[in-house]
Amino acid sequence: MMEQNWSKKEKAIAKRAFENAYEKECKDLIEKIQKRASEAKGPPDIWRLRDFLTKRIKEIENKYDYRYSMLILVFARLMQEGWITVDEIEGLSEDKISKICHLAEK
Amino acid sequence: MMEQNWSKKEKAIAKRAFENAYEKECKDLIEKIQKRASEAKGPPDIWRLRDFLTKRIKEIENKYDYRYSMLILVFARLMQEGWITVDEIEGLSEDKISKICHLAEK
Repeated sequence: MMEQNWSKKEKAIAKRAFENAYEKECKDLIEKIQKRASEAKGPPDIWRLRDFLTKRIKEIENKYDYRYSMLILVFARLMQEGWITVDEIEGLSEDKISKICHLAEK
Repeated sequence: MMEQNWSKKEKAIAKRAFENAYEKECKDLIEKIQKRASEAKGPPDIWRLRDFLTKRIKEIENKYDYRYSMLILVFARLMQEGWITVDEIEGLSEDKISKICHLAEK
């Protein structure tokens, strides 16, 4: 289902949307780290912050998979989580947008 | 060389010095994390902070070994790094203090 052709124009749109989402999510993570760090009082908070950071980085590394065979699923997840909007993928084929939105609603 | 007897009084002194050093080092680490977090600008800083935190936690976990057979070495290292002073181990036998100070100077 996910093997689709991506035109040059679509690739450019996808790349921008993907990179914007990545930047946004990392910015959000930095803010969360800053908050947790500023609230840290004692040793257990250091271990908790390490665990939080390790877990979130693993999630991000797994999630941001820029293979064209994966992009529909990746965008659906990013949309579901609020990191991209439908406006940002405007210009992709109707079929792709429809699949992304459909999967994001699940 | 490190197999020594620890009197009840010495154990109490050692425990307090050990715990104080641990608290001090963790407090220092929290301040370093807060500084790094507050200066973080983009994604690479998140990965760097994770690496820093993972490395420092490993060091702390390895260093703070409260086996009596290890304490002389542990205290020597803590003294070398500035986490305990000779005042804090006052009350240990002269032999122990001398070994700790000697090793700390190396």
